[in-house]
Amino acid sequence: MDSDRFQRGQATLCSIHGHIGEGVMKALGDIAPEFARFIIEFPYGDIYARGILSPRERQIATIASLVTLGHSPKELRAHIQGGLNVGCSKQDIVEVIMQMAVYAGFPAAVNALLVAKEVFQEIDERLVAGE
Amino acid sequence: MDSDRFQRGQATLCSIHGHIGEGVMKALGDIAPEFARFIIEFPYGDIYARGILSPRERQIATIASLVTLGHSPKELRAHIQGGLNVGCSKQDIVEVIMQMAVYAGFPAAVNALLVAKEVFQEIDERLVAGE
Amino acid sequence: MDSDRFQRGQATLCSIHGHIGEGVMKALGDIAPEFARFIIEFPYGDIYARGILSPRERQIATIASLVTLGHSPKELRAHIQGGLNVGCSKQDIVEVIMQMAVYAGFPAAVNALLVAKEVFQEIDERLVAGE
Amino acid sequence: MDSDRFQRGQATLCSIHGHIGEGVMKALGDIAPEFARFIIEFPYGDIYARGILSPRERQIATIASLVTLGHSPKELRAHIQGGLNVGCSKQDIVEVIMQMAVYAGFPAAVNALLVAKEVFQEIDERLVAGE
Amino acid sequence: MDSDRFQRGQATLCSIHGHIGEGVMKALGDIAPEFARFIIEFPYGDIYARGILSPRERQIATIASLVTLGHSPKELRAHIQGGLNVGCSKQDIVEVIMQMAVYAGFPAAVNALLVAKEVFQEIDERLVAGE
Amino acid sequence: MDSDRFQRGQATLCSIHGHIGEGVMKALGDIAPEFARFIIEFPYGDIYARGILSPRERQIATIASLVTLGHSPKELRAHIQGGLNVGCSKQDIVEVIMQMAVYAGFPAAVNALLVAKEVFQEIDERLVAGE
Repeated sequence: MDSDRFQRGQATLCSIHGHIGEGVMKALGDIAPEFARFIIEFPYGDIYARGILSPRERQIATIASLVTLGHSPKELRAHIQGGLNVGCSKQDIVEVIMQMAVYAGFPAAVNALLVAKEVFQEIDERLVAGE
Repeated sequence: MDSDRFQRGQATLCSIHGHIGEGVMKALGDIAPEFARFIIEFPYGDIYARGILSPRERQIATIASLVTLGHSPKELRAHIQGGLNVGCSKQDIVEVIMQMAVYAGFPAAVNALLVAKEVFQEIDERLVAGE
Repeated sequence: MDSDRFQRGQATLCSIHGHIGEGVMKALGDIAPEFARFIIEFPYGDIYARGILSPRERQIATIASLVTLGHSPKELRAHIQGGLNVGCSKQDIVEVIMQMAVYAGFPAAVNALLVAKEVFQEIDERLVAGE
Repeated sequence: MDSDRFQRGQATLCSIHGHIGEGVMKALGDIAPEFARFIIEFPYGDIYARGILSPRERQIATIASLVTLGHSPKELRAHIQGGLNVGCSKQDIVEVIMQMAVYAGFPAAVNALLVAKEVFQEIDERLVAGE
Repeated sequence: MDSDRFQRGQATLCSIHGHIGEGVMKALGDIAPEFARFIIEFPYGDIYARGILSPRERQIATIASLVTLGHSPKELRAHIQGGLNVGCSKQDIVEVIMQMAVYAGFPAAVNALLVAKEVFQEIDERLVAGE
Repeated sequence: MDSDRFQRGQATLCSIHGHIGEGVMKALGDIAPEFARFIIEFPYGDIYARGILSPRERQIATIASLVTLGHSPKELRAHIQGGLNVGCSKQDIVEVIMQMAVYAGFPAAVNALLVAKEVFQEIDERLVAGE
């Protein structure tokens, strides 16, 4: 195993997604443990950890891509939360999604705004609950 | 005509694309003049002019989306040049495209890197030519 | 605010989607009120209100596009209902979706037929309930 | 061979694409003659020949789908010409493409308008040449 | 009706999907009975029945395509089960999906792995239940 | 550098693409040398080198995915040639592409067949030239 990439990837994954990222890795571990490792090593260890762009800018790029793909609302949800974790405001995320109406069409943008609305509501509810 | 949106859109279009943007608008003007106006008014007048995100961040989002779509190398080329015009470095753009391998796949990223390479070479040739 | 476009857009939205359209606009209003306004102004105020094509023909084009995208069953549902509202028969809509198997593949067409089936069943149930 | 479907398909193909359709079939015939036959039998013999929608409405649906796919400018070109052959005006086709900006994004619509512009120019040149 | 293609298609459909395929055909039969027939005749009667590639290789190609489309988890589920029915092992299917991360991106591959996990769990539960 | 993955990746890349693969890597090396390395390490070193599926089966999956994406004819061309290099016959490749009409639509399949036709013609010309 390539332990440098894995450890760097785990640290980067955690800095973006916190403990939620571990759940996805565990769910994949049952069926494709080496793929769970690849996700930590390549996207998080090789790409996100490169610097040059700020973590905030990298989440902007990822959210733009996921809105454009349109088929992955769960990953979009994780990266909206990740964007908030690394310094994007709610309004920043709304702006990225709105801009995607121009490139990916209005349905893709509307669906993504409704995902963002759910993420923001859950955060507000956790705040009210004093978590 | 909605002259505020149009004027704001023209100014924003010009700040990103310079005079090259005018060529596309003229090419469309022959076949769909109202669509050329819509492009200036909606994407550039309503969306890009909103602030909140910086022009640099908006180009990062647009480049990410165009790499993900995969079917619009001419628009990608225009926004790579636009990104350079509003403060992205060449390396920033290469990083956004590389990151898209994770979400849109390696072929989409490779094709986009080859588009970026062409844009960068043309800039270097214009520099050498003393333009 | 650009009140002509907004009023024209609201009238066009209502002529296609009836009161259901208002619900979506309200859901978006919580998170991105200006985007809700953009949807009324641009797609409905600028595009659908242009004439030239009939409302029925415009719904045929929209349904074809949403089946092809494949990622927006809720919007597809709204435009299937919208198509019925502006003069498409159930069979017309089934024909458009069937034709999309040729361009977007059979899974996209099958999924869209199952959405249409749900819309048609709900209409029949409302009829039976005497609404 | 299923000669009814094939003959009905050939007649339908010819009514939409004229003699140009034969060229594509011949090009495919070198590599996949049975696939050339399938195209005549299924899309043209089974789907386009069904009636219910008018030929004009079917071309509107197909153009909408091809603009949305974004990756098939040659097929788009053939169906723009086909639309003109079965009763769409140039303006009808421009309207369908403009509407696709809402669903498939502006780059897909701009690229398609430039394809339509080329088709219309070639028609005008043939007219001037007295063909 | 074209009874040879239909009978060949039904036999091929059954050899891949068993009795589950009949449910989908019945669900479509309520809304578009001729489309249900087209599915049996064209994909199953004309394409899957051609030989040359083995049934196992054809399921590998179909699973790769459905992972890449990203918008059809129900069809993906049916063809994962179909792949197991015609000689793919669970690990073969996991490998095809993992490879798709390279071409369609990691979110498409992760989502597909979670669909495969569900299919495999249901099979294990049926085995435990002694079915 | 992770030399095991790189060496394994180079060997796998070469076994599929021969010396042509080196040209792409060199073209990318000018603009994104680390991305050229990532391509060798992740798709070729981590994925294609895993075994379980045969090289022939992996090319079937990749060709299916590239036909479905529709936006990468150059990569499709490379993997059609790669498929021939690892044991697919011309007819196998034609069959995979034909099957994709069912999932990705006829235009995607037609375009891919025309790419395959070009690859096959070039091979025949090289044979005639005695290369």
